[in-house]
Amino acid sequence: MPAGIFLVFEGIDASGKSTQARRVATEANALFTFEPGDTAMGAELRRWLLDAATPMKPETEALLMLADRSHHVNNMIAPALSSGRHVVSDRFAGSTLAYQGYGRGVDLELLRAATDLAVGSCRPTLTILLDLPVAAAHARRAPSVSDRFESAELDFHERVRAGFLAQATAENWRVVDATASESDVAGEIDAHLRTLGWPLRD
Amino acid sequence: MPAGIFLVFEGIDASGKSTQARRVATEANALFTFEPGDTAMGAELRRWLLDAATPMKPETEALLMLADRSHHVNNMIAPALSSGRHVVSDRFAGSTLAYQGYGRGVDLELLRAATDLAVGSCRPTLTILLDLPVAAAHARRAPSVSDRFESAELDFHERVRAGFLAQATAENWRVVDATASESDVAGEIDAHLRTLGWPLRD
Repeated sequence: MPAGIFLVFEGIDASGKSTQARRVATEANALFTFEPGDTAMGAELRRWLLDAATPMKPETEALLMLADRSHHVNNMIAPALSSGRHVVSDRFAGSTLAYQGYGRGVDLELLRAATDLAVGSCRPTLTILLDLPVAAAHARRAPSVSDRFESAELDFHERVRAGFLAQATAENWRVVDATASESDVAGEIDAHLRTLGWPLRD
Repeated sequence: MPAGIFLVFEGIDASGKSTQARRVATEANALFTFEPGDTAMGAELRRWLLDAATPMKPETEALLMLADRSHHVNNMIAPALSSGRHVVSDRFAGSTLAYQGYGRGVDLELLRAATDLAVGSCRPTLTILLDLPVAAAHARRAPSVSDRFESAELDFHERVRAGFLAQATAENWRVVDATASESDVAGEIDAHLRTLGWPLRD
């Protein structure tokens, strides 16, 4: 049995990636998953990571994210792919590099090595970046949101966006303009998926 | 104010390192600490790591250990050293390399990079290895012990012991023969500490 296709959506908050990732997964009856947190261990880690009261250095945050990713790969993603099922993940390794590396200044070379430790040979077949200017993302968000990531300053999100774009160039991701309408974004994503042999709804 | 001395004790279970680490810390009024688990986050991680019911790959285990270490360094060890206080730790980075690297086969180069991420510039002033043959350690242990680390097979512990010895050679640790009596072991440790300027009890 051929292994499943592993599709990853990346982007800053409010880029619409979760909506698109869920849509694509549902249409193809693929396993939809997300990071951080889609295992019992991950849910606990997510709670710590998003709790603004816990003082945590970005290196610690990155290592917890990577522990979560490792558990997630070994317990959900790799088994599904091996059984021939397609998998769609809302965020993957690119988010750790973008947020903790480019965004918070954690050493990129060490972070890449630690990421290799976490994911082993499990690599996305294709990563799609929903790219959105930070000002547009900010305008889309509810004003009440106040967890650690979302209350961080605009400069931080600019670095994260730049980090996603740098990875997209270096690793041959597809970049979709997320300022377009939801249906136009969906159309552009589906055009990329067609080249992969992804099972699209007619 | 000069920074404190950072002293680490390493060794396999039942080598007597905890007893010696506590003694040395108490005599010098140093901060005694241990890994994994001497923070609130660490206690939770320790619970997962030692729970035989949680299936966890050695890479995941290593990343959790390193997240714990990073938090521990930033919240306990580095602040104490900066304030001029001496610190004694029962286990540190060498244990991750010995147990998850040499013992369980996690890639050593990636593990070293991830360890660098966790500890940054916080390195032991001196590491003392209490070396004990695995058969001797086994004979010392209570037969009821059954957590994940302690029920692992003798071959695993042989690899861990060899991993500690390899690090001791490469990184200029002091090696103490832990088959000797507790007072002889203490005497040998104190001889090493004298060369460091460590405050010994008369």
